[in-house]
Amino acid sequence: MTLNPQYEDVGKSFVTTYYGMFDDPNQRSQLVNLYNAELSFMTFEGMQLQGAPKIMEKLQSLTFQKINRIITAVDSQPMFDGGVLINVLGRLQSDDDPPHAFNQIFVLKPLGGSFFLAHDIFRLNIHDTA
Amino acid sequence: MTLNPQYEDVGKSFVTTYYGMFDDPNQRSQLVNLYNAELSFMTFEGMQLQGAPKIMEKLQSLTFQKINRIITAVDSQPMFDGGVLINVLGRLQSDDDPPHAFNQIFVLKPLGGSFFLAHDIFRLNIHDTA
Repeated sequence: MTLNPQYEDVGKSFVTTYYGMFDDPNQRSQLVNLYNAELSFMTFEGMQLQGAPKIMEKLQSLTFQKINRIITAVDSQPMFDGGVLINVLGRLQSDDDPPHAFNQIFVLKPLGGSFFLAHDIFRLNIHDTA
Repeated sequence: MTLNPQYEDVGKSFVTTYYGMFDDPNQRSQLVNLYNAELSFMTFEGMQLQGAPKIMEKLQSLTFQKINRIITAVDSQPMFDGGVLINVLGRLQSDDDPPHAFNQIFVLKPLGGSFFLAHDIFRLNIHDTA
């Protein structure tokens, strides 16, 4: 059991890295490097995907170009395997759509001195999600 | 690495159990049995707590009696240690307050044929959380 004492910084720094890539159409394809090719899980608006190729297929199918994102809360916790659990709340506006509230959970697992993104859950319109 | 194939049922069933206890003032004290006395982490509206006694002190300090809760989404994923990651979105109304949107993340860790609640993150008013 090795808790990472830097979990708060790891969480904030990961959130900056992830959305920096996600929100820039020219960098979005680099997200593939955060996920494990076979192990990583993503649940996107209730749709379950596993492995970097399937996850990237979904993320690359999003057609918006411009994203205006505001992060309102980042809560991180250290996990017993040295990983970090991260909860993000915020608002985002893509192209000329109205702004939506969103919620995203990340679980980082340690791997060779760094981390990979083992779990990712994303929900938009969290006020009226059905 | 042993993924629990029942993760979806485990998630839904845990959510029913947890809120069944939480929302009933006569059962709320039983939540202590879900957390580990020393290990469990809770982040309640940004406040970090560890261990069942501190978590229960916080939960027992909530003074509302009546809770009207609507769950709008439960997303679960199996974890590599046999645990389950659960994300809950919903609305709740306590006593005569206006309804609020809420978000809660649970991580269940396997322990002797059952699970304990290792991680718990709760946020209310998720649209305008600062």
